[in-house]
Amino acid sequence: MNTNDNQPTGETDVRHPMLAGLQDARGLSGMSADQLSSIGVEIRDVLCNLLATRTAHFASNLGVVELCLALHAEFDFLNDRLIWDTGHQIYPHKLITGRYGQFESIRTRGGLMGYPNPAESDYDLFMTGHAGSSVSTAVGLRSGDILTGHADRRTVAVIGDGAFPSGIVFEALNNAGASREDLTIVLNDNKMSICHRTGAVASYLDRLRNNPFYTGLKHEVGRLLDHVPMFGDPAERLLAQMKEGVKAGLLGGMLFEELDIRYIGPIDGHNIPLLRKYLKLCKETPGPVLLHVVTEKGHGYKPAAEDPVFFHTPPAFEDRGGTPITRGSEGRPPYTTHARDAIGEAMKRDERVTVITAAMCQGNKLEPVRERFPKRFFDVGICESHAVAFAAGQCKAGMRPIVDIYSTFLQRSYDQIFQEVVLQDLPVIFMMDRAGLTGPDGPTHHGVYDIAYMRLFPNLALMAPGYAAELPLMLDACLAHDHPSGIRYPKASALDLKHTPAPIEIGKAEWIREGVDGTIVAYGAMLEQALAAATALEGELSVGVVNARFVKPIDREMVARSMADGRFVVTLEEGTIVGGFASAFLESAADQRLDTRNIHRVALPDVFVEHGDRSDLLADSSLSAEGIAETCRSAASSVSSV
Amino acid sequence: MNTNDNQPTGETDVRHPMLAGLQDARGLSGMSADQLSSIGVEIRDVLCNLLATRTAHFASNLGVVELCLALHAEFDFLNDRLIWDTGHQIYPHKLITGRYGQFESIRTRGGLMGYPNPAESDYDLFMTGHAGSSVSTAVGLRSGDILTGHADRRTVAVIGDGAFPSGIVFEALNNAGASREDLTIVLNDNKMSICHRTGAVASYLDRLRNNPFYTGLKHEVGRLLDHVPMFGDPAERLLAQMKEGVKAGLLGGMLFEELDIRYIGPIDGHNIPLLRKYLKLCKETPGPVLLHVVTEKGHGYKPAAEDPVFFHTPPAFEDRGGTPITRGSEGRPPYTTHARDAIGEAMKRDERVTVITAAMCQGNKLEPVRERFPKRFFDVGICESHAVAFAAGQCKAGMRPIVDIYSTFLQRSYDQIFQEVVLQDLPVIFMMDRAGLTGPDGPTHHGVYDIAYMRLFPNLALMAPGYAAELPLMLDACLAHDHPSGIRYPKASALDLKHTPAPIEIGKAEWIREGVDGTIVAYGAMLEQALAAATALEGELSVGVVNARFVKPIDREMVARSMADGRFVVTLEEGTIVGGFASAFLESAADQRLDTRNIHRVALPDVFVEHGDRSDLLADSSLSAEGIAETCRSAASSVSSV
Repeated sequence: MNTNDNQPTGETDVRHPMLAGLQDARGLSGMSADQLSSIGVEIRDVLCNLLATRTAHFASNLGVVELCLALHAEFDFLNDRLIWDTGHQIYPHKLITGRYGQFESIRTRGGLMGYPNPAESDYDLFMTGHAGSSVSTAVGLRSGDILTGHADRRTVAVIGDGAFPSGIVFEALNNAGASREDLTIVLNDNKMSICHRTGAVASYLDRLRNNPFYTGLKHEVGRLLDHVPMFGDPAERLLAQMKEGVKAGLLGGMLFEELDIRYIGPIDGHNIPLLRKYLKLCKETPGPVLLHVVTEKGHGYKPAAEDPVFFHTPPAFEDRGGTPITRGSEGRPPYTTHARDAIGEAMKRDERVTVITAAMCQGNKLEPVRERFPKRFFDVGICESHAVAFAAGQCKAGMRPIVDIYSTFLQRSYDQIFQEVVLQDLPVIFMMDRAGLTGPDGPTHHGVYDIAYMRLFPNLALMAPGYAAELPLMLDACLAHDHPSGIRYPKASALDLKHTPAPIEIGKAEWIREGVDGTIVAYGAMLEQALAAATALEGELSVGVVNARFVKPIDREMVARSMADGRFVVTLEEGTIVGGFASAFLESAADQRLDTRNIHRVALPDVFVEHGDRSDLLADSSLSAEGIAETCRSAASSVSSV
Repeated sequence: MNTNDNQPTGETDVRHPMLAGLQDARGLSGMSADQLSSIGVEIRDVLCNLLATRTAHFASNLGVVELCLALHAEFDFLNDRLIWDTGHQIYPHKLITGRYGQFESIRTRGGLMGYPNPAESDYDLFMTGHAGSSVSTAVGLRSGDILTGHADRRTVAVIGDGAFPSGIVFEALNNAGASREDLTIVLNDNKMSICHRTGAVASYLDRLRNNPFYTGLKHEVGRLLDHVPMFGDPAERLLAQMKEGVKAGLLGGMLFEELDIRYIGPIDGHNIPLLRKYLKLCKETPGPVLLHVVTEKGHGYKPAAEDPVFFHTPPAFEDRGGTPITRGSEGRPPYTTHARDAIGEAMKRDERVTVITAAMCQGNKLEPVRERFPKRFFDVGICESHAVAFAAGQCKAGMRPIVDIYSTFLQRSYDQIFQEVVLQDLPVIFMMDRAGLTGPDGPTHHGVYDIAYMRLFPNLALMAPGYAAELPLMLDACLAHDHPSGIRYPKASALDLKHTPAPIEIGKAEWIREGVDGTIVAYGAMLEQALAAATALEGELSVGVVNARFVKPIDREMVARSMADGRFVVTLEEGTIVGGFASAFLESAADQRLDTRNIHRVALPDVFVEHGDRSDLLADSSLSAEGIAETCRSAASSVSSV
């Protein structure tokens, strides 16, 4: 895939002739503003057409069309360095860097990734999906380029205002400011995370945007000076007024200037000549520079500009009016909906319960909870470390906070889970959404490590529901448990098992089905595939099915019983095969001096799983009903004597 | 231990009569400045005497004596909330909150912890050892207190300037500024991390400290106004000068003010009446306030004030002049020294090699490397997330960075290890120092999870030397390896094995000693105990010893061979028993369909290990030569037939 072969339909592509004609981005530097604008029109057309076919990141890509064109026109990013933070706004970049011909494959299996991908193009330096690291990697690239004698290379990091409050950005600014090395940080300010952004940095950017220097024109200075108080006033008043003047934006960008980062802006991020002019200025300015660019998320497509939250990753839509395609409802809501409902019920019943999200109110479907319990709903922005430590503080004060974060992003608070929660043994509850394969987002977003990385810590109870009705019961069990706990569930429809769940006891599995030949032990949502496999094997093999429920503490008795009488065991989990549920099972078996030769571990492999349809990806790892049945057959045929 | 029983020697304690007489800190509020000063003198006396007996945090504690007294005099922290960030400056706090009588036990097994500990006292809310989380937990406590109807409680976080650039602090300020809830953040500015601090925040604090408002006296304003340029000058010049004026500190604290945090200071942190006055002002100021307090690390004890780096955690010293006790050298340098030497050699040989530390230049003994290769030495401050992403950038540009971080602090960059390093498959090298039990520091500092949390990620080669001569060879192997890698080693003297190491091959163990009855498989430094145990068993049992070297990839052939012919296996590791080396061993055995019933896993238990002498703590978990020998005997007597 590491080719830049565009496979353009060439001159016959009447729809996007300019994109089709671009070999790579080097051609842009000599283009006029009108030509660049025409490319922008074509890019928006491609994006709108794509959205008719699949769920993809949309509004954020519409917002950076001009910025992307201006960047590639002013720099040569086959030599210079460009990092797109968070990465989901990469589509225009891909379209003008030799991937127009492959673009229809984006976010499909084997096709282009929906994020930057060094394997696709030399224009992509880092695969980015988690927010905030771009400034750090850019500082590192700059340092490396200087040390290797390539100081002529320019370095640019583009970061959104949603990602900007992430702690690592501050760490990077602290180092960039001190290093004094050349670096351009483009702050793409669209006033949004996926939802509307929150926090003091957001208010600060609002003040900057509303200041009279917006256009960057210096002749405004004169007008402003009329408002500066005259000498002779009391010193204190002057001081106060000057301070207010600064805060109003007279001396804009002090937050950055104080860290020795030169601040330029804000400027209109949809004006290509203006962007080029200021990017040129950034190139000429020694040391680190922050260029504050104001864009509109969804720009150029009215429905998206008017509702950028919905259009962040909308479902495929029917027409250019943006009406979403109403697919035949599967009638099975996702785990996320059940989790949200369980949270809402718990908050209704217990006034100590709060919920904390890190800018994922929409992804976690928490809007109704926010509306109903605004005082106990906390969106801290893309600040997962703070989210967890904040929860610990609330918990210490007597509340029962639920931290609702995607599995992959919870990695960002690993040290706070350790120090602030489990070391203090505080009953914070972690709801780990998107735990497993996230499908078309790919490896930056798959949440396949949490089983293994969470179970290392003492004091934690870790569980996963096998079907919908369990989720609220598990949350109740967590709330009744006086220690930290976590519940993981995937981005998938929840199994609607017609079954009265056994009561949730910490550390107790649920035996769903008995079997003579072997036992499938499923952790979490893989129960659905386990039951299908056992059913498919009927008449051939008699296979029991266990809903493991807990990885920590694991049900020791269940481990022994599942293996009893020489039965084979097949363990299932939507997580890495290294150190996860199967390893906990092996550890328990070893502790009980049981023979583990008949244990077969089915899990995700120890490689980065690509993007694609979740069910296809699961099937690749034998986590489909067919794959599991096949593993059972093979296990049965090789049963070792104990 | 959760008692406040002081066991004071009472009126007979002529040395520290005031400390001995304090039941808790509530008595301080009514005391005069002189009385508080007298207590300060007693505290310093206790600290200096303590240091004659053991290694402990020293200079930082001397620096906060007055601040601690003023805080407890102005607030009632049995009702109000106080969080000491990083926590090693907790000694004065312990001395005045009912623990004077137990103080001699500090940092010894079963005694007081060298960090805040809620199990010791209601005055300690969070066990803190990792930097930066205090502001977040304080924001959470405040939120919880409001929700539970305790808005009368005041909340104070005390954080050092070394910890301040940690990303989570910025995340917390972003949220505190937006929440507008009352909160006092005391920034204890002593110009130091353990080493001299670095970064743009540091320079900013220097500017604030050097500004004419230092004393907080407003009459200085008039003098300053003389320097403000007259009207009539060109607008640009005025603008520039005003900006410079701000940067010089005329309008101090804009970095915080821009985030809607009220800034007060800087003030002298050794003046108790001044501290009380400004703490009172903080209480009266609505919303979040940052009080900038300037202290001298080592204050009140001249040798420490003059060399605060050495006196951060000095060895026990002989006399009040601060001469360190020169103990009989063991003749066996610690792993850290071997690591440092290996890094220096690699940098000498290969110009691509850099080393990155997160404010641990001293702890990692890197001073000679810094002096010799200043351009390839990077101290990024207590910013582990940035450290790793920065390394990834450098690596992408063609350098070969070594990230030298304590195991426990590497948790703070977990997401960057994932996204910026292993997902990109960049050959960054992690040197994980203090991997294992750190002795008297206790659970915040023990590095017992890295084996398990690192081995989850694809692409990583993870290893641990069993003896000194292996360390440089392993670093060479990492540098020759085109993928990410990590080396872990403990805070301990390195075994000086008179032995020519077998060449390091990625994924290959070293067979040190053959045995007929069983095999001890040691990961890393536990090799020393393994060899001692095998020797002790001679004549009784014939036990082989394997230096496992790699946990990932684990040596599959070694696993099979160690168990062959019905031999028992005892695995050893200085890490948690959950998911670590032993689990990797079990996984490999299960993959090979080997009977695991004769595998005995000796590791640290799944609880937080307390503080104490490393060898005592190891012995508790049967990781002493005696414990291992005993496990071998027991294993031999229960060998199951295969």
